[in-house]
Amino acid sequence: MPEPLDAEPWFSRYAPLISRALDGALPEASGPLGRLHEAMRYSVLAGGKRIRSMLCLAACEAVGGNPENAAQPAAAIELVHTYSLIHDDLPCMDDDDLRRGQPTNHKVYGDAVAVLAGDGLLSLAFEVMAEASAGIPDSSRLQMVRILAACAGPRGMVGGQALDVDSEGIDDVDLPTLQYIHTRKTGALFSGACRIGGIAGGADDRQTTLLGKFGEKLGLAFQIVDDLLDETGHAEKLGKAAGKDRPRGKVTYPRILGLEESKRRVMELGRVASEIASEFDTPGEPLKAIARFIVERTS
Amino acid sequence: MPEPLDAEPWFSRYAPLISRALDGALPEASGPLGRLHEAMRYSVLAGGKRIRSMLCLAACEAVGGNPENAAQPAAAIELVHTYSLIHDDLPCMDDDDLRRGQPTNHKVYGDAVAVLAGDGLLSLAFEVMAEASAGIPDSSRLQMVRILAACAGPRGMVGGQALDVDSEGIDDVDLPTLQYIHTRKTGALFSGACRIGGIAGGADDRQTTLLGKFGEKLGLAFQIVDDLLDETGHAEKLGKAAGKDRPRGKVTYPRILGLEESKRRVMELGRVASEIASEFDTPGEPLKAIARFIVERTS
Repeated sequence: MPEPLDAEPWFSRYAPLISRALDGALPEASGPLGRLHEAMRYSVLAGGKRIRSMLCLAACEAVGGNPENAAQPAAAIELVHTYSLIHDDLPCMDDDDLRRGQPTNHKVYGDAVAVLAGDGLLSLAFEVMAEASAGIPDSSRLQMVRILAACAGPRGMVGGQALDVDSEGIDDVDLPTLQYIHTRKTGALFSGACRIGGIAGGADDRQTTLLGKFGEKLGLAFQIVDDLLDETGHAEKLGKAAGKDRPRGKVTYPRILGLEESKRRVMELGRVASEIASEFDTPGEPLKAIARFIVERTS
Repeated sequence: MPEPLDAEPWFSRYAPLISRALDGALPEASGPLGRLHEAMRYSVLAGGKRIRSMLCLAACEAVGGNPENAAQPAAAIELVHTYSLIHDDLPCMDDDDLRRGQPTNHKVYGDAVAVLAGDGLLSLAFEVMAEASAGIPDSSRLQMVRILAACAGPRGMVGGQALDVDSEGIDDVDLPTLQYIHTRKTGALFSGACRIGGIAGGADDRQTTLLGKFGEKLGLAFQIVDDLLDETGHAEKLGKAAGKDRPRGKVTYPRILGLEESKRRVMELGRVASEIASEFDTPGEPLKAIARFIVERTS
């Protein structure tokens, strides 16, 4: 049996592609609107693993496409993710001061600019998605816009975040509710990233559905690991304050299920995701590598 | 010479079409996400003249299309407009308590839900635009998505609002800067609404460009009238607090140019817009009627 693919070199190989697409999509931080555009660049180019973008590229590869053709759609997904972080960090939401080891957007630029930087990134994402070229047919690009909008919107990510904010400080949030929140808050964009990457690579409907399921499982695993790291991790490793969930009364998997059962669920979700990725044979290896990376990550 | 078309009956005729499209597009205010969805519905269905939607329908008619085919795109534009109002009213932005005679979104639902309701409306707008059917070709729908994103984004409406917030309390803002702000803050979406309506009606490139110019001129006129009404109007008529611009050090046309010169500019912009609309002959009459309505409005 061949050695399984390692995610880190794969990330290193494609990170410059995503960075270039993001840099090219973002407006220059000069001229009368320079401050707004600088704020947008500040958060987008702060780095991070760019997991969602990488899933988008890997999904493209899984169906036999060239990952480079999914660079623009992947950048669009990254813009949506970054907008959501900026808004989630606002004082009226999670009120976070640190993100990826740096002061959050509103800490640097003020609340008004942070709201607008997020708003600007969200619109820009749809511009980038609609313009994604590389020979992707118009009907596919429209489908990608629709998927992105649905994943990001009031039934997707925004819905999950609203319910998450609502449930802070409430003691009797049950597991189905928590799962409902995270399927939307994290799972929706993970699933969307995989489906969009697949469509950019020419996926048929069956493949697109499979990729969506893979992303949903993996998104949930990612969120549980996030909860676990907050419970057990260190601020330096996380690049954000650890141990913040419990004092603010945030519902988490470890709080409901305990550490051991939460870890077991992560392994199980990773296993199911990996099984789905196996349906794509060898081209599905990068998807499997990212799944392993997420299950095993410690920061 | 025939009697010129009156805007009000035209508005009354098409208002139900827009309301139905909006109601159909908005998620139901029930279930676990009911509160978020209720907040979205609260602001979208609060009414108003729906000028931008009406321009979209009128532009469709101007190029020989059936206004009903532009109902979905018009609803998408209205969703973008409403999101911008919700975010502009936030305490960290303009901090307004009243909008269309009702408490603003964050006054009713709190700041966090208001941010998310705005976010949700923006994503939903792109979903609605991408799904706009009625036989509009995919390439046209993609173009409509791109225009909406560009008008709403960091070089358009969001850019204008950022600069507007930045320039509060600064005394020496000059006319070119003020015009730069409003071309983006108001003009961009007006222009986009007209171009999108035209494309929904099958406009060629020349027609689309003309419609964009018409919308830009009219958007600027609309904004100057807004400034004038704040200076001279009454809160009851406006449905929002009047006389708020001056004490908060907001730059306005009357403040830079005086009342008379501001009024003269409105008339001039209205005249130019009307001239552009004349290029569409009789089908352009609704556009001209809306231009007159905007120039002459008192609330």
